[in-house]
Amino acid sequence: MTLRIGVVGTGMMGRFHVERLASSVLDAEVAAVSDVFVEGAKQVAEQVGARAYSDGHELIADDQVQAVLIASPGPTHEEFTLACLAADKPVLCEKPLAPTIDACLRVLEAEAAKPRRLVQVGFMRRYDDGFRSLKAAVEEGRVGRPLLLHCRHRNADVPPGFTTDMMITDSVVHDIDVTRWLLGQEVVATTVFKARPSSLAPEGLQDPQMVLLETSEGVLVDVESFVTCQYGYDIRYELVGESGTVALGEQAGVQVRAEGGHHGPIPADYRERFGDAYQNELQEWVSGVRDGQVVGPSAWDGYATQAVAEAAVESQTTGGRVAVDLVERPALYA
Amino acid sequence: MTLRIGVVGTGMMGRFHVERLASSVLDAEVAAVSDVFVEGAKQVAEQVGARAYSDGHELIADDQVQAVLIASPGPTHEEFTLACLAADKPVLCEKPLAPTIDACLRVLEAEAAKPRRLVQVGFMRRYDDGFRSLKAAVEEGRVGRPLLLHCRHRNADVPPGFTTDMMITDSVVHDIDVTRWLLGQEVVATTVFKARPSSLAPEGLQDPQMVLLETSEGVLVDVESFVTCQYGYDIRYELVGESGTVALGEQAGVQVRAEGGHHGPIPADYRERFGDAYQNELQEWVSGVRDGQVVGPSAWDGYATQAVAEAAVESQTTGGRVAVDLVERPALYA
Amino acid sequence: MTLRIGVVGTGMMGRFHVERLASSVLDAEVAAVSDVFVEGAKQVAEQVGARAYSDGHELIADDQVQAVLIASPGPTHEEFTLACLAADKPVLCEKPLAPTIDACLRVLEAEAAKPRRLVQVGFMRRYDDGFRSLKAAVEEGRVGRPLLLHCRHRNADVPPGFTTDMMITDSVVHDIDVTRWLLGQEVVATTVFKARPSSLAPEGLQDPQMVLLETSEGVLVDVESFVTCQYGYDIRYELVGESGTVALGEQAGVQVRAEGGHHGPIPADYRERFGDAYQNELQEWVSGVRDGQVVGPSAWDGYATQAVAEAAVESQTTGGRVAVDLVERPALYA
Amino acid sequence: MTLRIGVVGTGMMGRFHVERLASSVLDAEVAAVSDVFVEGAKQVAEQVGARAYSDGHELIADDQVQAVLIASPGPTHEEFTLACLAADKPVLCEKPLAPTIDACLRVLEAEAAKPRRLVQVGFMRRYDDGFRSLKAAVEEGRVGRPLLLHCRHRNADVPPGFTTDMMITDSVVHDIDVTRWLLGQEVVATTVFKARPSSLAPEGLQDPQMVLLETSEGVLVDVESFVTCQYGYDIRYELVGESGTVALGEQAGVQVRAEGGHHGPIPADYRERFGDAYQNELQEWVSGVRDGQVVGPSAWDGYATQAVAEAAVESQTTGGRVAVDLVERPALYA
Repeated sequence: MTLRIGVVGTGMMGRFHVERLASSVLDAEVAAVSDVFVEGAKQVAEQVGARAYSDGHELIADDQVQAVLIASPGPTHEEFTLACLAADKPVLCEKPLAPTIDACLRVLEAEAAKPRRLVQVGFMRRYDDGFRSLKAAVEEGRVGRPLLLHCRHRNADVPPGFTTDMMITDSVVHDIDVTRWLLGQEVVATTVFKARPSSLAPEGLQDPQMVLLETSEGVLVDVESFVTCQYGYDIRYELVGESGTVALGEQAGVQVRAEGGHHGPIPADYRERFGDAYQNELQEWVSGVRDGQVVGPSAWDGYATQAVAEAAVESQTTGGRVAVDLVERPALYA
Repeated sequence: MTLRIGVVGTGMMGRFHVERLASSVLDAEVAAVSDVFVEGAKQVAEQVGARAYSDGHELIADDQVQAVLIASPGPTHEEFTLACLAADKPVLCEKPLAPTIDACLRVLEAEAAKPRRLVQVGFMRRYDDGFRSLKAAVEEGRVGRPLLLHCRHRNADVPPGFTTDMMITDSVVHDIDVTRWLLGQEVVATTVFKARPSSLAPEGLQDPQMVLLETSEGVLVDVESFVTCQYGYDIRYELVGESGTVALGEQAGVQVRAEGGHHGPIPADYRERFGDAYQNELQEWVSGVRDGQVVGPSAWDGYATQAVAEAAVESQTTGGRVAVDLVERPALYA
Repeated sequence: MTLRIGVVGTGMMGRFHVERLASSVLDAEVAAVSDVFVEGAKQVAEQVGARAYSDGHELIADDQVQAVLIASPGPTHEEFTLACLAADKPVLCEKPLAPTIDACLRVLEAEAAKPRRLVQVGFMRRYDDGFRSLKAAVEEGRVGRPLLLHCRHRNADVPPGFTTDMMITDSVVHDIDVTRWLLGQEVVATTVFKARPSSLAPEGLQDPQMVLLETSEGVLVDVESFVTCQYGYDIRYELVGESGTVALGEQAGVQVRAEGGHHGPIPADYRERFGDAYQNELQEWVSGVRDGQVVGPSAWDGYATQAVAEAAVESQTTGGRVAVDLVERPALYA
Repeated sequence: MTLRIGVVGTGMMGRFHVERLASSVLDAEVAAVSDVFVEGAKQVAEQVGARAYSDGHELIADDQVQAVLIASPGPTHEEFTLACLAADKPVLCEKPLAPTIDACLRVLEAEAAKPRRLVQVGFMRRYDDGFRSLKAAVEEGRVGRPLLLHCRHRNADVPPGFTTDMMITDSVVHDIDVTRWLLGQEVVATTVFKARPSSLAPEGLQDPQMVLLETSEGVLVDVESFVTCQYGYDIRYELVGESGTVALGEQAGVQVRAEGGHHGPIPADYRERFGDAYQNELQEWVSGVRDGQVVGPSAWDGYATQAVAEAAVESQTTGGRVAVDLVERPALYA
């Protein structure tokens, strides 16, 4: 039985998902798409034989739509997710769950009243083979109890309009989510440090930054966020345990020996690096929904990550350590 | 439109393919399976909702079967492939195409009389990302004109009954195919050298061996075949060009630093190493067949590889250099 | 012409240096050794044919002693270094120059009044091939202007009595010195963060820690100090520049493929890792002194590093950012 | 006590050794040098305060010369080595011991009549840390009994006049020696294979070649000899044992991440790669001679290696397998 999916938002990310759903996810079809820029929606709809809407709410209300993927701009996530909850339809919402803590809490509250989870948030690193192996190694106890976590998050470049706070809310949120997921601990405080800004970064962008996270059990996490590193998309992690360390390895690829050196590749962007993770995320979501369960990153994960991100943005301004206080975790997310 | 596939043979390899076709290949379904051990066929058939036959010819004749995958023992490949050709049904035949040169030639002749290709041979390394990157690097001229190729083909262990000539016909055939595909040249001669046999190999097995191949343009290829290397499944290639070399990199995976060293993983077996390649092979075959074309490894590739393999087996006995003479290549394979 | 050297202190470090000077440094001989534990001094003296003293001041006064190496406990460094300056004898003082800022300043003042440098401090990493290549790569502009520096400083274990502040004064001082030398900038502030302490560390030792350094031009440096990491002596650096990064590579050594993985070595301790660096340090010091010049790490380096270390120890207690104020740099060290 | 050394030959290799002996070998001094081009000898002699001769025999006869290093052209090695034996002076002879088997045998015979060894041959790889670690790993049994050995011997380029047979006699001789030393076995047969010659090699040079060696206990060794590989000086070894493999690792050096990839260095030439090995070779020879013993590569090693090299040169012409027959090993070399 094929799952009929509606995709809200047909910008870059929406198209990326529509294409995968249509061409390489088993048991899925794109039944409808929507965008306020309706011409874009129509164009995408035509390619995959779906209906087009200008209003996401109409799409969500469409009887033919069994599950919803939200890829519209962040400020619209709350209303569409709430609409899906109201309609009792499973929803995969691209990060962020919502762009403010309060909005996240409203979604959380709405879902917590339900008998079972409907919302999944698009933290796709959890679906990457490398990150999964990292987590497995930690859980197998190969390096003992975790003490430190070093994260490198480098983009070759950013699109125009990318701002200093977006380095947290758009980029470091992934590292915050991985920290919570990998360690199974919440983040209780954060401090942001600013390095000398790169002269190759756009005017006004504080790039790079170092974000320090402290977890509930005292693990210290440092995240280098450098979004104009020029040379590639470079995501590296090293977890330090009591008896050893475990790190993401270099990406596979051919090794060339030429011109006085040996050379290996670095991915160009997140599509190349995390293409398979997006694929796994969609496939596992579709298969799970068809089986009646949603097990991926939850609204709680979306809320907790947003809370840490807001604290980090505050630390960007104040320069000091900002504590993170979470509400009590609803039973649904136990 | 879903492609309805019949799978001949439900031994280990057949089941491996049935499972993939049923669970992770788009637009494919397993319509029928067959095995002389019919109970096995029935068991598999039940799992995927397919019909079961004891006779592969009946399966091939089944109107519901649009394409055939042959995973029965090598000696049966000729008759089933010929039956598929007679029925004008696309067929993906596991290697070998057939276990003798003469049998290969009969298949070649039968297909060469057709207006278009129907036969594909299961050389799945061509579908591996690493091998594809290797070929791309060579073709982009990153290391200049190829001169030498070093191949390592190591298995941790082999099943009971594995014989010295099977090290060529079952294992090195992959390296012969890769050599031909990577360089775009035929192999014109081969010499096999025997090392001191490992005391950990089964009694009577001449393991390891070194197989030397010479190509039509003078590239020298050495293949280490070591099927009881104990430590893992280790496939490594280095092509030496006029201005540099290009090699398959280590497989990705976590790097552990513990107990005085740094440690990275090596795959356990071909399933782990080439799982994605098998997936790509099946998906591209299914998609191609639905579009009316077969573009993977051809019957010519099956024949040429078999001719080299037989020469190598002869060299195992004679100890000398054995030339390889191929028939003229039919126009269909131009 | 051989340089006749007196070595003050015949504990572990003193013996280590005496042995090198006697057996593998060109144009050097150990003329005298001293130790308050005079039996130890006599034993060492006998092995290399040197005179033994119980008092370092007598050794310094010995006419046969042309240059002095101080390897006695830190609290004695000031008096012996001042004595060498008074006697106009070149002196290589193991780190620290002196264990307080004030003591360092007294040495600085005494030497600054001289026409030329006599004091060198034992920061031997500057003599390591790897660190020298790192500096060369940065200065050649291979990665653009430096923005960040990540340092890992891990020991397998520490001797009994090792305390939390010694993690800074004994261990991180090397990273402070490398930071200053590599970047050619002073450190202006530091903040220390404490991770959950390892249960494998001795009772009361706050291990690991993360030390943040800020340089005069805004480079952000993070130093992981983990002195009971169990698995080896692991020193790693990655400098992040505007267009790329440059890192110390893995140490050379054989690569073993066995038991499901590939494995490379990590040094056991500083002797294995920095043996050649100590050798270079001594040889270049001896050769320089014979040519009438002292060009290695200066008393200024000793003072500036000590000032940062004291600030870091203060931050260990206060938990906040501590600024570092240096006196004006005397002309001698321009 | 300083060892007074005479160096025969002041060409490139002779000057290389004189410089090391004078500047960085302990307890050694260059007492005399000789060259048929006496102006060159005089120039070198002046730099290090040595006497200059035009005739190596006069140098050997000089009472002030206690030990001799022969770095003159290969055809003169026999007469000078025999003269050293006649004068009972220890001699370090650069490879080859002599350029023919017969000449080697004459040296062997002359030394075998002595009560103790005087002759050492300049196979410096035995003094390289990497090769020593490789041998240690094999002897510790980390990979089980050796079965295969893969050797890569690549030079960026060769000087004018370099011929096809010199690829064996000048270059592969090192691999022959390492094979014998690493495995503790003699080579009993060899076969040379020629690849398509590189268009970047000088006209007439058969480059690259593959040299196969078979040892007395059946280990199979393949040596790639590629002397115009363009990209660097690249020496790599992998020994395959019954339970694993052990390989020389990449050379240490900084790792740069820039322009879409990660990059590590490859040495430019043998001086960079084996500088420390030459240093160790000279130091250990000098120290040993002063202690009255010569323990490095022996005249037997020089002879046995030459015998294999001549067989390989024969195989270059005949194209077939050539057996190697050695004389009985004199008791002196037991």
